[in-house]
Amino acid sequence: MHAYARAVHQYVEAFEKADLELIRDLYADNAVVEDPVGTDPHVGIDAVLGFYKSSLEMGAKLELTGNPRIAANSVAFPFKVVVPAMDMNIEVIDVFEFNEDGKVVSMRAYWGPENNAS
Amino acid sequence: MHAYARAVHQYVEAFEKADLELIRDLYADNAVVEDPVGTDPHVGIDAVLGFYKSSLEMGAKLELTGNPRIAANSVAFPFKVVVPAMDMNIEVIDVFEFNEDGKVVSMRAYWGPENNAS
Repeated sequence: MHAYARAVHQYVEAFEKADLELIRDLYADNAVVEDPVGTDPHVGIDAVLGFYKSSLEMGAKLELTGNPRIAANSVAFPFKVVVPAMDMNIEVIDVFEFNEDGKVVSMRAYWGPENNAS
Repeated sequence: MHAYARAVHQYVEAFEKADLELIRDLYADNAVVEDPVGTDPHVGIDAVLGFYKSSLEMGAKLELTGNPRIAANSVAFPFKVVVPAMDMNIEVIDVFEFNEDGKVVSMRAYWGPENNAS
């Protein structure tokens, strides 16, 4: 499996296990996360991990709905995020961009009000 | 239906009908198309239409494999592109960015060798 596809599966596993260390391992220190696209980004690993900590604590789980698409230093992948406690079920596409060390430096999440499938 | 989702369906229809005018109608004059991400972009409407003319002439057809994800001025959508004459079947995610007139100014296509499903 391509390293970027492995990263996507590790990302899904991190939510499954609510394991912030698995998220930490994916990201570069200078990572920027914009989720959803159009909102203020989380800049730097501390801000990024703070964002994910909340998601994991809410019990969010991810389910891939198609194969990761790999192009140059990027991977785009379609999935659903489910938060049972909040009756939330949203269809999302994330785009990761990797640095030369294979760490994610940019994550952009595409979703909006139209993508709530609950 | 959201205007950006309509644009995605018009895009699929353009391939179905091999109708370059439907493509032209979607794009701004200053559009940039990078397909796949990491290759030299097609800059400006003439270069963009030249690129699509080749695809349409090859008989490429698109099939959505999930709902368009809409965020801010963008839409990301997963699909398969099938080119029967070339026995080609590739899984792709495209990201459109729109200007204030609702025209696509940027298209980035995520796919690579790992996404050939034929």
